[in-house]
This record gives sequence, C-alpha cells and structure tokens, in this order.
Amino acid sequence: MRTSIATVSLSGSLTEKLTAAARAGFDGVEIFENDLLTAPLTPEEIRARCADLGLGIDLYQPLRDIEAVPAGLFARNLRRARHKFELMRRLGADTVLVCSSVDPSAVDDDALAARQLSDLADLADDFGIRVAYEALAWGRHVSTYDHAWRIVEAAGHPALGTCLDSFHILSRGSDPEGIEDIPGEKIFFLQLADAPLPAMDVLQWSRHHRCFPGQGGFDVAGLVRHVLRTGYAGPLSLEVFNDVVRQAEAGPTAVDARRSLLMLQEEVGAAELPAPVVPTGFAFAELVTPDADPLAGLLDALGFARTARHRSKPVDLWQQGEARILVNTGAAVRRDGTRLAAVGLESPDAAGAARRAEALLAPVLPRLRAPEDAPLDAVAAPDGTELFFCDTRPPSGGDWRSDFADVEHAPAATAVRHIDHLALTQPWHHFDEAALFHRSVLGLRADESVDLADPYGLQRSRAVGTADGGVRIALGVGAAPTDDTVHAQHIALATDDVVAAARRFRAAGGRLLPIPANYYDDLAARHEFADGELETYRDLGILYDADEHGTLRHCYTLTVGRVFFELLQRDGAHRGYGARNAPVRLAAQHAAQTRAGG
Amino acid sequence: MRTSIATVSLSGSLTEKLTAAARAGFDGVEIFENDLLTAPLTPEEIRARCADLGLGIDLYQPLRDIEAVPAGLFARNLRRARHKFELMRRLGADTVLVCSSVDPSAVDDDALAARQLSDLADLADDFGIRVAYEALAWGRHVSTYDHAWRIVEAAGHPALGTCLDSFHILSRGSDPEGIEDIPGEKIFFLQLADAPLPAMDVLQWSRHHRCFPGQGGFDVAGLVRHVLRTGYAGPLSLEVFNDVVRQAEAGPTAVDARRSLLMLQEEVGAAELPAPVVPTGFAFAELVTPDADPLAGLLDALGFARTARHRSKPVDLWQQGEARILVNTGAAVRRDGTRLAAVGLESPDAAGAARRAEALLAPVLPRLRAPEDAPLDAVAAPDGTELFFCDTRPPSGGDWRSDFADVEHAPAATAVRHIDHLALTQPWHHFDEAALFHRSVLGLRADESVDLADPYGLQRSRAVGTADGGVRIALGVGAAPTDDTVHAQHIALATDDVVAAARRFRAAGGRLLPIPANYYDDLAARHEFADGELETYRDLGILYDADEHGTLRHCYTLTVGRVFFELLQRDGAHRGYGARNAPVRLAAQHAAQTRAGG
Repeated sequence: MRTSIATVSLSGSLTEKLTAAARAGFDGVEIFENDLLTAPLTPEEIRARCADLGLGIDLYQPLRDIEAVPAGLFARNLRRARHKFELMRRLGADTVLVCSSVDPSAVDDDALAARQLSDLADLADDFGIRVAYEALAWGRHVSTYDHAWRIVEAAGHPALGTCLDSFHILSRGSDPEGIEDIPGEKIFFLQLADAPLPAMDVLQWSRHHRCFPGQGGFDVAGLVRHVLRTGYAGPLSLEVFNDVVRQAEAGPTAVDARRSLLMLQEEVGAAELPAPVVPTGFAFAELVTPDADPLAGLLDALGFARTARHRSKPVDLWQQGEARILVNTGAAVRRDGTRLAAVGLESPDAAGAARRAEALLAPVLPRLRAPEDAPLDAVAAPDGTELFFCDTRPPSGGDWRSDFADVEHAPAATAVRHIDHLALTQPWHHFDEAALFHRSVLGLRADESVDLADPYGLQRSRAVGTADGGVRIALGVGAAPTDDTVHAQHIALATDDVVAAARRFRAAGGRLLPIPANYYDDLAARHEFADGELETYRDLGILYDADEHGTLRHCYTLTVGRVFFELLQRDGAHRGYGARNAPVRLAAQHAAQTRAGG
Repeated sequence: MRTSIATVSLSGSLTEKLTAAARAGFDGVEIFENDLLTAPLTPEEIRARCADLGLGIDLYQPLRDIEAVPAGLFARNLRRARHKFELMRRLGADTVLVCSSVDPSAVDDDALAARQLSDLADLADDFGIRVAYEALAWGRHVSTYDHAWRIVEAAGHPALGTCLDSFHILSRGSDPEGIEDIPGEKIFFLQLADAPLPAMDVLQWSRHHRCFPGQGGFDVAGLVRHVLRTGYAGPLSLEVFNDVVRQAEAGPTAVDARRSLLMLQEEVGAAELPAPVVPTGFAFAELVTPDADPLAGLLDALGFARTARHRSKPVDLWQQGEARILVNTGAAVRRDGTRLAAVGLESPDAAGAARRAEALLAPVLPRLRAPEDAPLDAVAAPDGTELFFCDTRPPSGGDWRSDFADVEHAPAATAVRHIDHLALTQPWHHFDEAALFHRSVLGLRADESVDLADPYGLQRSRAVGTADGGVRIALGVGAAPTDDTVHAQHIALATDDVVAAARRFRAAGGRLLPIPANYYDDLAARHEFADGELETYRDLGILYDADEHGTLRHCYTLTVGRVFFELLQRDGAHRGYGARNAPVRLAAQHAAQTRAGG
C-alpha cells in the first residue's frame, strides 16, 4: 500500500520537505500549492527533484471555489483551472484536489455543481488529469462526504471522483460506514489526519482563550451596562487566563489589565478619561543604527534626499514628498543594531493626546533635549517603540522640524508621496496588549487579526489605523516565543507608480527582493493582465492583489538589520496590506537570508 | 467604581502577583485558592501583605462541587466549607465564590440545590461571610446565569447571592439583558473576561490541531477499514498541520508521520510488523554526571548501596531492592550536566523488541563496548533517551549485569522496592511524537494527557505504561518552547512506607522539598486523617492524594542538575501520579530554586 504525505504537513522550504519525506520512506507527496508558489524551483525542477528522491507526485492541491457559481464566474474558474492543469502537466501530477466551495457567490444547487464539475472533468481529461472532489467540513453548501459523493455520482464523469479526508469526515461526526457505499474506483484519494477531541469545548475555551475586555469578541461593555442598571455596586473584577498571561511577566500584564478596565469603564460611562485625539498622519519614522551607510544607500536609491540635520544630535532627516525618515546614530540607541525606534504622529492636539495616553497608563518618556529643542510629548508602546505626538499646528514652542537645520542637498525624487503604513513585529507576549493599546490610547480602529503562513510557522497580523488611512500600523507576531525569524519591521512607502519607483530604485543600484517565478504563473491563472504587465512585475518582483475595492501592487527592498522598505501602490479604495502575498514574501525573505548566509 | 483582578490572571508567585496588581492601580484582588496553597506565606501574612499594598481581598475562590448532592456527601462538603471559612477569617475575606457543581454525583434538583446552598449560607453567616453562587458554563446541571439566579432566589437567604461572569454568560450565548431582572444587591460579585469568538470553529480546529493518526482522538483506523472495503487502491496520504508541525524540523516530523502510518497499516491489517514485545519492568535507570559526588550523596541518603562497578567504563551500579541506578561519569556523556541518559527495560525477548523498534523507524544505537561486554540492543527515544532492551532470561551472551564487577559495600536499606516510574520532560516539538513512539515501539498504553498548572505556565503530562504498572513513564512538556523551567527529569522510587523512607533519608542528611503549610490546611479540609498523621506529612513534606481506588503518598528530594527523586507509596490500586499535587510541587521547586539563587 502506497504512502504519501502532503508537503503542508512538514515545516520549511519545499526542498527540505521533499528530502525529509523521502528519507522517512514515503512513496509520494501531495504538492500543496503554496509550497510550489514560494519555491524558487520551476515545476520541471520540482518534478526532477521528486524523481531523484524516488517520490511520486500523487496529488496537486487545492483548486478552490470552482463549482455551483454563475456562468460568468464559472468561465473564469475554468480559465484558472486550465492554467493549473498546464502546471500539473509540467509537474507530472495526474490528480487534482478540488475542495467544496466556500465562495459567498456559490449557490445551493447540486445539479449545477454536478454539471460544472463535469465540465471541469472534461477539461481535466484533455490533460490526462483526474479531479478528486472533497467536502470541506466548513464548505458553504457541501460539507459532508456523502453529499460530495452524491454530486460526483450525479455528474457520472470518468475523470471525476471523490477525495476522502478523515479530518473533514470525523470532525463533522459523520458515520464513516457509509463510505462502503462508494465504489472503490471512484475514491480517487484518501487523506488522513487525526485530531484531539474538543471534549468540554467551553472549558478549553475558558482555560486557554479568556482575554481582557476589548481584546476578544464579546460585548463585555453591553453586559456591564445591564449589570449596572440593577444597582450593582460591587467591584468590576477581571478573571482571565490564557497561555500568554500564564507565562508573561506579571507587571506588564497587570497594566494591560487595568487599561482594559479603564476603557470599559469609559465605554459604560463609569469613568471620565481625556478624550482620544486621533492622529492624522505620520510626521516621521525614526531608525537607529550603528552604521548609517547601508541605510543611507538604501534611502538614496529609494529617492530620498538628506535634507536636514538635528542641531544637537547625530540625527539626519531624509525626505521625499511627505515621507520623512530620521536616521539616528546616537551611541545610546545603537546597541540593538538597525531598527525602528520611534514614530512621530501628526496630532491636532499633542498635549491632549499625551494626557489621554498617560491616563491609560502608557509610560510617559522623559525627553533629554538641548535647551533650544522643541518640547515633544512621547510615550512608549508595549513593544518599546517611542510614540511622539507632533502638533500639526504647533502652538508656540515650534515643532520638531525646528530642531533640524537644513543642509544642502540634491532634490529628492518624487515617486514616494508619504508613509503608507508601518509594520511592527510585537514581542510574543504583547500582541493582544498592543492592539488594545493602539485602540485605546491613540483612538485607532483595529481590523480582524489574520494568519500568515511563514514556511517555519504561522504568523498573525492585525492592522490598526484611522478611518481615512492617514495612519496605518500592522502589528505582527510570530508563531511562538522562540520564533526569531520574524523580528523584522518595515516601512511601506506610498507611490502612485510602483513600476517607475521600482525601476528608479534598481537603476540607482538598489536590490529588490526576488520573487519566485511560480508566483507569477499563479497570478496569470487568477487575473487577466495587459500585454507585458505581468512580465514587468516578474522582472521587478512586484506582487499583486485585488479585491472588490481596488488593487494593490507592492515590492520589497532587502533587509538592513531588522528593517526593510516596501514600495506600494494602492488603486481604487484597496485597504489591504497584501496578506495574500505574505507567504510568498516571507519565504522569499527566508531564501534571501539563507543565500546571504544569515 | 472599585476594580479588582483575580490572582489567577497574572503569572508568577502570589507575592509577584499582588505587587503587580497594586502597582497597576487595582483596588483589590480575588485570591485564587491554588495561589494560596502554593504560597509560603500564612493567611495572616497574605492579609498583611495586601493591606500594605493597599489591596482589598474582594473574593476567595472557588469552593467547588457543593450543592445538589446526597446528604452524606453534603455533610462532608459542609465540613470542607467550614475549613475554608476559617481560612477566610484569617485572610480577612468576606465573600466566597461557589461555582455550580460538576460532580457526577450531583442531581438535577433545583429545590435540593437551593436548600443546601441555604444551609451553606447559614454556616457562612456565622463567619460573617457571603456566598456568591455562579453558573459555570460547563456546570453539570446549572450552566446559565438565569438558572443560578432562580436557585438563589428560591433559597431566599440574605447571605446567598449570585456571581456573574461575563465569560460564562457570553460563551453560552445567553442574553445578558435578563440580568436586569436580578436585584443589584443580590449580585454579590461581577467577574469580567473577553474571549475571541470561535468563528468557523472546525476551520480553526483543522488549522491548528490536526495530528498524525494515533496522536488524537479520532478512530482513523476504523475509517480506513471502511475505505479499504470499497476496493480503494490509492495511497494513504497524510494531511496534517498544527502549530508544532509548522515549526518543527521536517526530518523528525516525517519519521513521526511514517511511524504513525505504519501503526495504522498494522491496525487495519495492511502491514505486518514484528509483534510488540511489552517490557515487564525497569532493569535500570542510567544517570550521567560530570561530578558523581552530589548524586552519590543523594543515593546514599536514599538508602542505596554502591554494589558494583562496570568492568571497562566509569560507571557505578547503585542498588536497593529491585531499584538499580547507574551513575556514569564517562567523559563523552558529561557535557550536558547531570541528567537521565538511558533506561534499561526488562524484556521477555530483547531481540524481538529491537526488531519491532527498528521496523517502526526508531534509531538503532551503535554500542561501543569492550570485547567482553554483553551485547545489548538499544534504540533512541524521540527525546534522545537511550532505551536498552535487557533480556529477563538472557539467552547466551550473559546479561548487562555481567558487565559489572561486584564491589565491597555496606548493605542497602530496604525501604525502596523498585522504580515506580520515570518522569521525562520532552522537547516541546516532540510531545505527541513521544507518546506515539512509546505506544507503538514498546507496546505501552497511553493515558489521557492532563494539564498541570505551574506558576509560570501550563504544563502537560501524559503517562504511558504497562497494564500491570511494571513500566510507567510520565512524559511531560512545558507550555511553550522557551519554557526552560521544566527540563527536570525524575525517578520515582516505590516504597511500602513513605514516612519511614522519608525519615531515613532526612536522618542520613538528605533534604526534602519543603511544602507550604497552606497545602496541609487544604488537605485537612478535604480528607480526614488519624491523629498526628497530617502533622507528620507536614513535617516531612509528604503530599497526599486519594481516589476511589486507593491512596498515594509521596515526597521529593531537591534537584541535582536536571534530576530529582521521588519517594512514593501507593495503597490500594491507586494508579495516579499525583497530578492534583503537581502545582504545589512545581511552585515549591520554583521557590527552592529561587532560594538557591538558581
């Protein structure tokens, strides 16, 4: 009996995965699409590597969101499938996994699903490929194996069968005995996984996932309002436990906890805090470094000009459009290598912003300054980043810019307009705390947190920002406290023409993060581009995403210390951060680091 | 409005928790019972500490499994409650949390619950204490706040009110508006927690908790049998992902995966492996150390005698009863400090055991030995521990004992009879793998895994062993990869009289792990002891547990390197490992380490 393993079941690069599977004695592998997209090998090279290792490619997976959709969408889905079948031919894989649709536009119509899957099987047949249709446990309309089989049976196509996955079957509590009603030759594939039973589900939820009010999804304030209406006069007491709180230092946890209660009290009208002063933009981002040269080279290639120097400190101001980067080589801050140490936030009322921050227990920073320097209010964020509140209309003492004396400079380029967002990796224990801090102290809105697949673990990311996008910060965290591959911070620079900006950067000697060619084959399957457009992206390493609001095009510089830059073009009202592209970017950064021997 | 925080919401020792809560500006705390039990401070000292810090003790919690039980059991529950009320008087706490029963002997009878809670409130009233009754979301019969309130209302006792907890209410999806029907003065306490909504529950389960067949709770083999009956001839393919697999090195994961499939194939009759040879006992445990003196002192105080020395290596054999400890000071193995490096397993067929291990991909160890040494088959467990298969009736070449030459020695004591169990902490990435390894390779049975609360995180433990208890190994793992407080290994020594063994150890100059006095107050509340019995335990640091099968008494030595010893007396058919006492032991070990400046 042949044994296989899905590449997604192993950690690391595709090469590492294939080697490990072969050494352990598996006969074949399922190639998981993301592992192919992020690999620097061509499909032919992957095929040859598997052959050398004695591994068959038993399955290519997954092809998602194909069936039971309106005709126009189905035509696009077939076009996408054709691209994948061409890829599979290069790969030498003859079975594709199609999992039941989770697309909101899919309809609950088994006959339509059967007809479209049959059309898909026709196309697959032309390539000598078999389609294995699987019910995802969370499929929109098809979520049980017997339902998937009824559709396959109704389709009655020789190149269409079903794929069984023990997780999807047993997690739904389906009776597996019904499997015996399916003819064996129509079971095209069998995937196996076990899982711990979620016995006493709520107990585990309580034990591992309680968090402070405002950090989860409950309407705790609503509940408290009901309680207060009863005349309850006892304490508001926090009873929270989760795996982070159990391990984190008690001091910061207690502060985080109190801040959460202060927010809650404000929400229910039981406490008066200084009103939030929402920042309107980034005044500057400050990088500290033991060696200014690599950063200066990078900023120069990005088109920044060194326009001013601090009057009393070793700090340079680099500027392009409204994007301002400070480079600080002061001795006191250099010991941790190159990193983002401070952020200046444009504020309509800096003093008010500082009062609110202090009321919400943000550590207020003492400011060592020369007598002539402008006074600046600053607090520390949970990750230690210093946040400066910079008055947009400074009242009297002048603004931060007046601490700097202009220096002679060549004019900056004009591609970059402003800082689009900052991405700051949080210490593992402070992720939820950081989101609450930015919401409560700065009055930012928080998006949902999303998982990003890194080759060596799952990262989480949660964006906070203002309604108009003037301030956006992406808070990130690694999969585990030891995950030291993710301490990167980055500055995303907004441009109206990312192609021109990338070309300019490269012409000035800058190096962009190389993106694997497979990524562009996938883009071609998913989107239609004008002639030559995709080749341009491929050449420059530009990533692409689109949603109903607009498009995003972006590319990355290599990393200096902990810091790298992103050039980013938003069109329409795209508000995303390229989460879909993050696995490709992360794998490319691992690969670049490996090449650099880092 | 007063703010409080439960001590369980913060990490560390009780002192650390109180300090953090006060510094963050909380007005009071809920004292969580476990934090009191594990603290070296008396209740009066805790009260004084809180007063010094300006903290009120707003709640003592929890009193569990009180109500709706048969009269005899309720009388014992009242006795337990009286002990706790006396403790609360010493502590200066005037409100106690009673959470709805999860006891299997509780009955679904609201009138009985109300009557017994009223009796409890009578008793509490004598101490000036108020009882706050709370519905646990997973309570056996009472799991919603309105149900708990109906019972409190029916009881109609002034010292009985309800406690509301936002987690228990919102996790059940109850409508909090009904809270307004409760008079505020009958809401004795309000606990707040938020939690992430388990949206797309099965998706999260799939993404984070799939594991290899045999490592979870699904009947994967049963499912595969159904599939094979259809005539399915395709591959068995593993599709697994979880937070460990995403991060662990691909090589060992792939081996673990293949072993899981081999076991599965054997189970469904699709592969023939050499039959398991179940070990019958421990032949020896081998410690390696750079410095034999501390271990020799410990073994000597425990009553072991150094009875033999290896003919060609710097290895001593220490023996008492059937417990045999090897102490190895060989240079090649000393670099990691004092640790348990190898285990000898008595085997009815050592060669057969080794054949099965090899077929299940256990790394077979080369044995460097002198020409006259007995040949011994050995494999490496996932954590690197060497497992030697020692024939109970050696066929020809002599057994491992023949490698040792007797030395003159004083007779050993006789308190210790044999090794009861070994407790081995696993590297974080290898916990599930280790359990599967021991089950598949050695044919041991695995118990359910249990959570153990350490002051700095939640540990997990899973015991594997033989049906008759001849071999027992407790596999443990810390809360996170960085959790380096839990790398301890220990050897539990079975005795028929733990009091005599502990006294002997102490008289010989040995030091036992000191256990906080509060633990013994709690024992007195939960169990009845003969006169003087509890004082003896308190004096020696003996821990106690009982279940329907029998009792367990045990105590611990201090730690040398990574290793400590346990003296353990099982009476009746108690099969446990003292999980209930583990939080106390772990906190005591942290405290001992802190005192030692470690």
